Amino acid sequence: MGERGRFIVFEGPEGAGKSTQIARLAARLAERGRAPLVTREPGGTPAGEAMRAVLLDPQLDIAPLAEFLLYAAARAQHVEEVIRPALEAGTDVISDRFTGASVAYQGYGRGLPLDLIDDLNRHATGGLRPDRTLLLDLDPARGLARAAARSDHDRLEAAGLAFHQRARQGFLAQAASDEGWVVIDADADEVTVADAVWHAVEDLLAPAEEPR
Amino acid sequence: MGERGRFIVFEGPEGAGKSTQIARLAARLAERGRAPLVTREPGGTPAGEAMRAVLLDPQLDIAPLAEFLLYAAARAQHVEEVIRPALEAGTDVISDRFTGASVAYQGYGRGLPLDLIDDLNRHATGGLRPDRTLLLDLDPARGLARAAARSDHDRLEAAGLAFHQRARQGFLAQAASDEGWVVIDADADEVTVADAVWHAVEDLLAPAEEPR
Repeated sequence: MGERGRFIVFEGPEGAGKSTQIARLAARLAERGRAPLVTREPGGTPAGEAMRAVLLDPQLDIAPLAEFLLYAAARAQHVEEVIRPALEAGTDVISDRFTGASVAYQGYGRGLPLDLIDDLNRHATGGLRPDRTLLLDLDPARGLARAAARSDHDRLEAAGLAFHQRARQGFLAQAASDEGWVVIDADADEVTVADAVWHAVEDLLAPAEEPR
Repeated sequence: MGERGRFIVFEGPEGAGKSTQIARLAARLAERGRAPLVTREPGGTPAGEAMRAVLLDPQLDIAPLAEFLLYAAARAQHVEEVIRPALEAGTDVISDRFTGASVAYQGYGRGLPLDLIDDLNRHATGGLRPDRTLLLDLDPARGLARAAARSDHDRLEAAGLAFHQRARQGFLAQAASDEGWVVIDADADEVTVADAVWHAVEDLLAPAEEPR
C-alpha cells in the first residue's frame, strides 16, 4: 500500500454522543475494509492514561496552566507512540478529542492565552493536524443534562455552565476559521448524526475504494 | 514586614547529597529566625506529587517531550500554589530542583531544543527566578554509585552514564553563564559542603539580620 491513513478527530462537549458516533464510524469504516484505530485524549497510551487519571481526579486542585501542560504532555505521548505510527502504517485513526479541545477548554474556557496554546499544541503534535475534525455541537445545558443522566461527573463537568458556554464558542470559532472542521448538530437523532458524520468524511476515502 | 522571602534552589545529580544539605541549610536558617519552606520538584503539591508518581514510574514509557511537559506542568502548579505565595508572604523557600534540572536532563540529557525548554520554563514559572542556585557538582559515576547504595532507582537513574554526563555538562554550562549559580564540589565531606552552601547564600540575608 504505502498510503498514509486518515486522521479523523471528534470534538464537542461531554454528552454530545462522541463515543456512540465514533463506534458507528469505526464500524462503517471497517465494512469498507479500513478498520481504524480508535483512541482518545487524554490517554491512549499507558503513560497517557496515568496522566488522564491525574487530570480527571476531582480531589486534585490543578491550576489552569498546569492542567494545559498535562494535556499537552499526554498529547505528545499519544502522537508519538500511537497516532503517527498508525497513520504511517496506513491505518486510519479516529481520536476522541485532540488539539481543538485545549483551545476550547483551556483557552476560551479557562482564559489561557490562545497563542501559548497554539504554540504548545504545535510542539506536542510535531505539526500533525487532523485530516478532518467533526464538531458535535450541542447547547452546553443539554450536554450537561445528558452527562449528568449518565452520572459521568469529572473536573470538566464540575466547572459550570458559563465555562462550557465559553468552550462552545471556542469550538465554533475554530470551526469557522479552519476548513478542516465540520459542524454537526448533535441534538439530532443518532442515525441522522451518523449520516452527517459519514457525509463529512466520505471524501477522505481513496477514490478506488469509494467510486462516485 | 513586607519583605519578600529568598528563593534558593539546589541542583545536581542524585547522590550529590541535596537532601542532606537542604536539611542543614534549613536548620541554619531556622536558627536565624528565618524558618524556610522546604519543597521539591517534581512534586510539592498534591497534584504535583501525582505528576511525580507518573514521571518516576519505571513501568511507564514516556517520550522526552511528554516527560518535559509533565515536569513543566508540575512546575507551574508548584510555583503558583506553593513557591510564589510563600515568597510573597516573606518566607524563604528552598527547592530541591527547579528549572535548571529541565535544561540539564531534558535539554542536554535527552536532546530537546534548549530554546523550547527556556520558553516553557518561563511560562511555567511566570518569570520567577531563584535568588541563588547551588549546584552540588559530582562526577556522575560517583553519584550513581551513591544512589545505587541507597537502592534509589528511578527512571532518571536507569538512563545510563552517558546521559548523566551530558546532564552534568548542562548544569555546568548554566552555572558558567548565570551569575546566580554557585558550583559546590559535592565530593567533599558533608560539613565542608554545608559551609560552602552557607557561604554561598549568606549575602542574601537581610543586613539587619546578618551584620558584617
